[in-house]
Amino acid sequence: MEHKTLLLNQSDINSLITMKDIVEIVDKTFVGFGEGTTINPTKVNLDLGETASYPDYHGFMNAMPAYIGWEDIAGIKWAGGFLGKRREMGLPYVTAMILLIDPTIGEFKCVMDGALITNLRTGAQAAVAAKYMFPNKKEISIGLYGAGMQGHMQTLAFAELFDIKELRVYDLYPAAAEKFKEDMKDAVKGDIIVCSDPKDASIGDVVVGFTQSKDKYIKDEWIKPGQIVFPMGSYTECEDALLLNADKIIVDHVGQCMHRGALHDVVADGKLKEEDIYATIGDVAVGRKPTDAANERIICVPIGTGAMDIAVAGIVYKRALEKGLGGTFEFL
Amino acid sequence: MEHKTLLLNQSDINSLITMKDIVEIVDKTFVGFGEGTTINPTKVNLDLGETASYPDYHGFMNAMPAYIGWEDIAGIKWAGGFLGKRREMGLPYVTAMILLIDPTIGEFKCVMDGALITNLRTGAQAAVAAKYMFPNKKEISIGLYGAGMQGHMQTLAFAELFDIKELRVYDLYPAAAEKFKEDMKDAVKGDIIVCSDPKDASIGDVVVGFTQSKDKYIKDEWIKPGQIVFPMGSYTECEDALLLNADKIIVDHVGQCMHRGALHDVVADGKLKEEDIYATIGDVAVGRKPTDAANERIICVPIGTGAMDIAVAGIVYKRALEKGLGGTFEFL
Repeated sequence: MEHKTLLLNQSDINSLITMKDIVEIVDKTFVGFGEGTTINPTKVNLDLGETASYPDYHGFMNAMPAYIGWEDIAGIKWAGGFLGKRREMGLPYVTAMILLIDPTIGEFKCVMDGALITNLRTGAQAAVAAKYMFPNKKEISIGLYGAGMQGHMQTLAFAELFDIKELRVYDLYPAAAEKFKEDMKDAVKGDIIVCSDPKDASIGDVVVGFTQSKDKYIKDEWIKPGQIVFPMGSYTECEDALLLNADKIIVDHVGQCMHRGALHDVVADGKLKEEDIYATIGDVAVGRKPTDAANERIICVPIGTGAMDIAVAGIVYKRALEKGLGGTFEFL
Repeated sequence: MEHKTLLLNQSDINSLITMKDIVEIVDKTFVGFGEGTTINPTKVNLDLGETASYPDYHGFMNAMPAYIGWEDIAGIKWAGGFLGKRREMGLPYVTAMILLIDPTIGEFKCVMDGALITNLRTGAQAAVAAKYMFPNKKEISIGLYGAGMQGHMQTLAFAELFDIKELRVYDLYPAAAEKFKEDMKDAVKGDIIVCSDPKDASIGDVVVGFTQSKDKYIKDEWIKPGQIVFPMGSYTECEDALLLNADKIIVDHVGQCMHRGALHDVVADGKLKEEDIYATIGDVAVGRKPTDAANERIICVPIGTGAMDIAVAGIVYKRALEKGLGGTFEFL
């Protein structure tokens, strides 16, 4: 009996999937969370010096297994980020690999790069969540903090689901914002406005933060009813008051959002508890928890689940088989 | 810049490592646990129907990341067991893959089969733990429950560290015990005695259980001072009274032993708490927690840590590079 495992690299993956596909896959997988057919245990962290003193490599790796009911596939992404030596070498922050198994027998079907899929699915999460909360909106205005790779991905994903009538962008480095404006001119139907004052970027139906900031730069007083704020960075982008005064806090995965990212500080300080989370995005996707986004100030934190990676990888794998792409290796 | 990842299969691994090597690696890695240089977060389980009702595939996968200080390597094993369809197909219970990274930058160095290493390192754990507790013993007698593949592995590992002066073996299937006797005649210096009554196999300096039993068949009254019991099965092989009356309970990883394997029931019933665990094997290895095994009844549960797999895989990878073995793939 043959037990060949398929091997796929970034260029294979890139040729097999578009942001349009990713948005659809992320959508179905959020619905699966709501229906209970997306199984996503809380990730486990291996601290390689991100916060630990030993070993001191300024990095971490997260193990993120998941089962995706609508595809009947299971897998794991092992992914992390490294500063330190990796940054000095000019390598990208994220490093990741994805393993897929046949969930009925545990046989390994595919090993593929995980960094590209991480970037793509992260881009899609906020846009899909916004679609659930603004179901009747065709046009959207966006305030974007951070004009880096993820700023681009977020914009491309919103452009799949909405006509972007205006996009205001702020970046610590004005040149990055200007480059973003040039790069994204086809994706954004309306104007792209580069802001020199961060406050000016806070106008928009959605406000997306994707920065490395720990400065809580998104202020409570900036955000009005009718705006959804997506703090997507690894640290605390929103002022505590904004989190605590929001009408609703919605997350993708309660266990994973309590100790990392936007909610970290208010949880650590005992100001926010699990019961203060109104709903998961899955709850909203299946209509179990209604929102009134036109009249509320909503904070939505899709911190990222392995389920999204495995769901995307499952489709990539299926298409690779159909097209005969990739290498193979017999591990047994 | 090239980013080739090495690929190794079972036959590569088999040609690069012996049980003697494994015993040494497991030893150094237990010492690393004691010294704090083996970093092993509690594994995360993806239930694919082992206990969950959805999905209903009678299997599970555990994500087991680790960093090994003495090798300066990090990696993850994703491993599980499947009954159901996998068993019907005649495939082995365990399925596993190992990923290794350069822990300084997170680059993926190697992808290798994990099932063979799982079996080998599981074999070595009890033998190495016994060595710490019987430091002056050259000859040992063994009582063994379960004459399957792991019974063989356990015996081979003990034979690396001790002269086996007698081995008593019981298996539900007498033919399996007879086959074991034939297979292991070179590894065991003294006699191998096939027992038809389970009680008769309970004599020995160490009593090793490696069965699928849930019957708590190892009885409190059988075990005398001077015996170490290693219940290695996935379920509860020891009578509650034996666990509760033991002089010392020693485990490899406190977090992982509380909810699975030998201690599951007494923990679930609230009869055993974390503070009732005397020490980890790492504590014993570095001399932090003394034992008096000649006069005590000790229960030792090495339930298995990803660290052991990653430590073995790290050496296999290094040797494969030296010998030019394995395939390669460029995932980026």
